[in-house]
Amino acid sequence: MKIIDIRARTVPISRFADASIPSGGLTTTMVAVVTDVVRSGQRIVGFGFSSIGRFGQQGLIEERFAPRLRQAAFADLSDETGTNIDPFRAWRVMMTGEKPGGHGERCVAVGTLDMALWDLAAKIADVPLYRHIACHGPAAPAPSVKVYAGGGYYYPESDVGRLADEARRARDLGYTRFKLKIGGAPLAQDLKRIEAVSTIMRDPAHVAVDAMNAYGRDAALQAAASLTPCGLWWFEDICDPLDFATLAEVVGSYDGAVAAGEALFSVAEAKLLAAHGGLRKQRDILLFDPVHCYGLPGYLQIVREFDARGWDRDRFWPHGGHLFTLHLVQGLGLGGAEVNPFCFQPFGGLADGTLIAEGRTAAPDLPGIGFEGRTSTRQAFAELVGERS
Amino acid sequence: MKIIDIRARTVPISRFADASIPSGGLTTTMVAVVTDVVRSGQRIVGFGFSSIGRFGQQGLIEERFAPRLRQAAFADLSDETGTNIDPFRAWRVMMTGEKPGGHGERCVAVGTLDMALWDLAAKIADVPLYRHIACHGPAAPAPSVKVYAGGGYYYPESDVGRLADEARRARDLGYTRFKLKIGGAPLAQDLKRIEAVSTIMRDPAHVAVDAMNAYGRDAALQAAASLTPCGLWWFEDICDPLDFATLAEVVGSYDGAVAAGEALFSVAEAKLLAAHGGLRKQRDILLFDPVHCYGLPGYLQIVREFDARGWDRDRFWPHGGHLFTLHLVQGLGLGGAEVNPFCFQPFGGLADGTLIAEGRTAAPDLPGIGFEGRTSTRQAFAELVGERS
Repeated sequence: MKIIDIRARTVPISRFADASIPSGGLTTTMVAVVTDVVRSGQRIVGFGFSSIGRFGQQGLIEERFAPRLRQAAFADLSDETGTNIDPFRAWRVMMTGEKPGGHGERCVAVGTLDMALWDLAAKIADVPLYRHIACHGPAAPAPSVKVYAGGGYYYPESDVGRLADEARRARDLGYTRFKLKIGGAPLAQDLKRIEAVSTIMRDPAHVAVDAMNAYGRDAALQAAASLTPCGLWWFEDICDPLDFATLAEVVGSYDGAVAAGEALFSVAEAKLLAAHGGLRKQRDILLFDPVHCYGLPGYLQIVREFDARGWDRDRFWPHGGHLFTLHLVQGLGLGGAEVNPFCFQPFGGLADGTLIAEGRTAAPDLPGIGFEGRTSTRQAFAELVGERS
Repeated sequence: MKIIDIRARTVPISRFADASIPSGGLTTTMVAVVTDVVRSGQRIVGFGFSSIGRFGQQGLIEERFAPRLRQAAFADLSDETGTNIDPFRAWRVMMTGEKPGGHGERCVAVGTLDMALWDLAAKIADVPLYRHIACHGPAAPAPSVKVYAGGGYYYPESDVGRLADEARRARDLGYTRFKLKIGGAPLAQDLKRIEAVSTIMRDPAHVAVDAMNAYGRDAALQAAASLTPCGLWWFEDICDPLDFATLAEVVGSYDGAVAAGEALFSVAEAKLLAAHGGLRKQRDILLFDPVHCYGLPGYLQIVREFDARGWDRDRFWPHGGHLFTLHLVQGLGLGGAEVNPFCFQPFGGLADGTLIAEGRTAAPDLPGIGFEGRTSTRQAFAELVGERS
């Protein structure tokens, strides 16, 4: 087998189900890795995208990382049998010549291609991705995993009412936990948003808040003091992601769980978080986005770093909210998965018809990641490879 | 005035004067920011490039940063008089919507455009760049600054002999200090390289070594022990740039000066280096590359962070080895400048005919950065804008 084409296209991606609401100009890059393998008359293609919440990486993919894959001998990309891609070996090819430090952007470019390579490898192995990676997880993978609904951005009009509607729709889908954004409005207004969502989810301990790294030291401590009585599930991305001194100070003053790591992208930064962030291994939450952290090989470096420090894997709740992260949670035995049922379409959310029962679900029983089981995602990727869906 | 065009092109750039020697596939991106201002019949164009030692950033420039400059109203880019670009205001336009963390690649893309904007602003002001930025430096800028010759990469054949030739050529040009690479060969071989260069420069205290972040903890401590008796000028980029624990351990065991920061790209990382790297403000050296650190506005954040911590500016010897960094050293009152007289052409080195006297030189007395005073650089930029030089 060989890779015969790698296609990439950057598309806008919205924080809102209604994509016409201004959303910060975020983008993601879709990639398709096309092989010469044909199964039941269908060519095997691996699909990936740059996760959500930052920017697409078509430029770096086309300048540096896709050329290295294209120029590699298949023997440098394949497993020992020569019948499938080994994404770890492909990852080393992509990282050839990369220099130490500078963990931004390229980590997303590599992670985007890496997602497609795992989709490809699991499709060729003819198993769902979570089973293909089970050797990196617990002896007996769980048949289902905990999930929560992410979203809860600020609406430019009728904010609290529309936020409550969004949480209600999530609850009606079977989600028992919800995460909303704070830090973009005065605290009093944020407390109203939190109260509205807590009422709908019926328990503030099922509601997490995400400050999107907005607070400086004083505002962070003030917010922590105001949030303590709320009894929330967790308090996320409090300050600048590299301001470990402020993070440690907030952790020291906040009884509830703190969540960190969404805007850290490498095992080098993860070690600094572990050493200086003050996190408590029995309580706090690790959010690293596997796609943004150089893909699964980079993410596993981070998971193993915390394994070695005595953290349980149930402290990992990876950022992302899409099918790839769901497979990783199930396959690696992590705490649970974010799902974006409404925002970041057509990539957020689960396969069509997936049931959420008591706040749990499972990855689709399809080969690979199973994007084919979600109509809107399948159509987007079909367009990229020039086929009608 | 307005910006009427922004052009970018990525080109290979070699660690060797002989560009046919394999050199890690490094690239840099040249940019030209073209205005509608005409002076003495010549259109004013600002030139920049992505410094050296990492990769070009045409993709990110074209995807994110040039479009923001193009779409901005001139009033958002200009100074109060409306007659010149204010690169600090242009920088804020480029950074609009950027998210916290992830200080890699984009910092180089922004720094590349920023260099061109400073060239432009100083050309419109009709002064050399170091004078245009003098308000950020000492009351009385020095008429000349200390410099050293950088280079000294491993030659694939006849390494020590060719390295000695390179150092001799630098000495013949007037350089009294030289920096070579180590960490890519066994220590015994590196000690031979160091001895050869020390003999030519006539004093090991005028010779610095750069390990290019190659050592793990044990190798770093071993190297430090072996280098201590050499009495070198400084020991640079010892371990992974974010491994502050190893750096601090080496600093604690090494009497000579240590140099760090070339592969850190933001004030957030600079604060971590200052807090956890164990550096000694009377002895150690700060290498941050202004172009790689989000350009001059980002670099000034770092300089001021160390100002506030009581460091003297003479501890800054910025990485780069080209005219832009020379202007910054002279204008901001920094310790000294790297010059790459032979490698990283056509961008390394000084203006044609520049004299080095007793290891000191000065930025060219031309408007802007003065790339026009270096034939090979002028020709490269002229090709980019489609003119004959």
